[in-house]
Amino acid sequence: MKKIYLDYAASTPIDPRVMEAMIPHLKNNFGNSMSIHSFGRQAYEAIETSRKTVSDVINADPREIFFTGSATESNNLALKGVAIANKNRGKNHLITTTIEHPCILESGRWLSRQGFKITYLSVDKDGLVDIKKLQDAIKKETVLVSIIHANNEIGTIQDIETIGSLCREKGVYFHTDAAQSFAREAIDVKKMNIDLLTASSHKMYGPKGVSCLYVRRGVIIEPILHGGGQEAGLRSSTVNVPAIVGLAKACQILQNEGEEENRRLTNLRDTLIRKILTRIKKTRLNGHPKKRLANNINISFTGVEGESLMMELDFQGIAVSTGSACSSKTLEPSHVLLAIGLPPASAHGSLRISLGRWTTKENIAHTIKILSRAVNKLRKISPYG
Amino acid sequence: MKKIYLDYAASTPIDPRVMEAMIPHLKNNFGNSMSIHSFGRQAYEAIETSRKTVSDVINADPREIFFTGSATESNNLALKGVAIANKNRGKNHLITTTIEHPCILESGRWLSRQGFKITYLSVDKDGLVDIKKLQDAIKKETVLVSIIHANNEIGTIQDIETIGSLCREKGVYFHTDAAQSFAREAIDVKKMNIDLLTASSHKMYGPKGVSCLYVRRGVIIEPILHGGGQEAGLRSSTVNVPAIVGLAKACQILQNEGEEENRRLTNLRDTLIRKILTRIKKTRLNGHPKKRLANNINISFTGVEGESLMMELDFQGIAVSTGSACSSKTLEPSHVLLAIGLPPASAHGSLRISLGRWTTKENIAHTIKILSRAVNKLRKISPYG
Repeated sequence: MKKIYLDYAASTPIDPRVMEAMIPHLKNNFGNSMSIHSFGRQAYEAIETSRKTVSDVINADPREIFFTGSATESNNLALKGVAIANKNRGKNHLITTTIEHPCILESGRWLSRQGFKITYLSVDKDGLVDIKKLQDAIKKETVLVSIIHANNEIGTIQDIETIGSLCREKGVYFHTDAAQSFAREAIDVKKMNIDLLTASSHKMYGPKGVSCLYVRRGVIIEPILHGGGQEAGLRSSTVNVPAIVGLAKACQILQNEGEEENRRLTNLRDTLIRKILTRIKKTRLNGHPKKRLANNINISFTGVEGESLMMELDFQGIAVSTGSACSSKTLEPSHVLLAIGLPPASAHGSLRISLGRWTTKENIAHTIKILSRAVNKLRKISPYG
Repeated sequence: MKKIYLDYAASTPIDPRVMEAMIPHLKNNFGNSMSIHSFGRQAYEAIETSRKTVSDVINADPREIFFTGSATESNNLALKGVAIANKNRGKNHLITTTIEHPCILESGRWLSRQGFKITYLSVDKDGLVDIKKLQDAIKKETVLVSIIHANNEIGTIQDIETIGSLCREKGVYFHTDAAQSFAREAIDVKKMNIDLLTASSHKMYGPKGVSCLYVRRGVIIEPILHGGGQEAGLRSSTVNVPAIVGLAKACQILQNEGEEENRRLTNLRDTLIRKILTRIKKTRLNGHPKKRLANNINISFTGVEGESLMMELDFQGIAVSTGSACSSKTLEPSHVLLAIGLPPASAHGSLRISLGRWTTKENIAHTIKILSRAVNKLRKISPYG
């Protein structure tokens, strides 16, 4: 049985063209980019070329791109690095939302324990942040607003351009976690007034173990990993050349093909949503109907346990998830679904289906067939019947 | 011209067998290890198998191995994670040495700024820590002693077994940075009373962007990267499966071949040291003559600028370094060479030559020839004459 992978939001395969770009660097470009000899210079050049490629995609300067080891690290760096660096300026307040990825929420909690104040903005039933509420939350002690660009579970895309200009106007830094959106939405950090932005490689057909943080020049930030002073002192660690080359290649492919890919994914997504909602009774779409990631589907199935449905689909060769991969091993209902007002039972009965580069029409047709059967089967044996 | 790489201490090529082990995971094992479906389980299994392999090498339990993104991160985690987690127990003092890698020294400086007290132990002329001094430095507020196993610049190997038992006896945690030694010295964390240990993948023929931290069960430590709770909550980030598989394969190769490789390297090292000291005048070996890494050579050349010598050798196709790669772009003299008592001029006139798996007898013979010529040439034009 050929398996169907519909969990691209959790992690994507590496594009074969990315692999091809990485292989020579894995095999031969092993120097330490801090070394001055020819091996070191070769490594250094590969990194700087990659930095330029990545910066071009979001209209930044290469010196504003900092490579890190993961989107989690980039988000930790953005929040903690800005908070700690600005503490002595009387700035001890950060604003974020209730629907962030755990790495933002947990960084916020850690900062709370260090004496910082954090405001968690609620969202509406579609997962959108209320700009008025954000405006009211900004105080003179506020240093940073961090709002996820597109939510990883329900796919809702925030109006970051409006948020960005509000923050700029109020003189507070604006960070956005674009781990999910980077592959799907055009980003222009200048036009959108973004001060810091997190991208993830393994969510866009690049390798795992690498990410980048955009930091606008002039932003006051300090490192969270201290050491040899790589990445202009903001992220110490021997620089991971092959992974960075892979990330840059992934960016380049997106720049060339992203728009076309998103049109195709949007069509597949809308077909699958329509068919699920019409063919399977007692279902609802979670997240914004229009302002949503081209590849994201999140559906609640009344009377069905999401975990059971996911396992049944897995048994039938289809990989989907019940929420973010990070929290899939806990039995807690999704904090995002609760935040948009779902009762715990509905939150427990939800699936995230995320499409990607190798998802075909046939996959979608097969999925709707198997999913309908699975829901019917589980509803028959459900105690909630 | 075939280049000769003698900077294995800065970074090693990936062993082809490691590459071979990684490739299937780079190509096909792309799931998120936190996902419950078959793709996730496949990723999870690869990680847990790797964890077992790594733990076996140092006589630890697999649950005591935590994968991180770099040795720098592991060292930051060891120091900051232990310090912050134990602050409320009245423990605010850490002990380290003046010859640590910058990631330990800078983590210490950061902790100082957060109110911790740090003692930096001096070392003797060979780079050895005085056990008596260590004993005297341990106070009731001391929570952690962090001492590098083998120094990255001068190769001196500390007696960590004695240090370990002293720390255990005094009830303080003992961390050792084994980034350089892991490939060279047999490590048994139980026998050596080690509580935390840092290993680096790209210093032992594994890929960059991965490392592991051994943390003995029962050690009180908190994460520095917060998020989805991977690595038993100690290191959040999507787990980098291919890199971890590579690290484990690199460990396995060392376990099978390390002893033999070290005998071979020790011979090559001693030949090169002897020839340099006898054929080139006004030279001295830095670091302990006996207790030193099998692949490390560090020599001061009177009347020669290390940077110029390194560049001249690079021009002749031989890659060596003047100190650690991390600090090779600064013009400061090596803090390690100053710590063992070298005057700044001698520290500036030093080279680190580090051998590895693909270093041949012929490489050594060629190097001594080219090096003698280069030193003579530079001494002729030196203002120090």
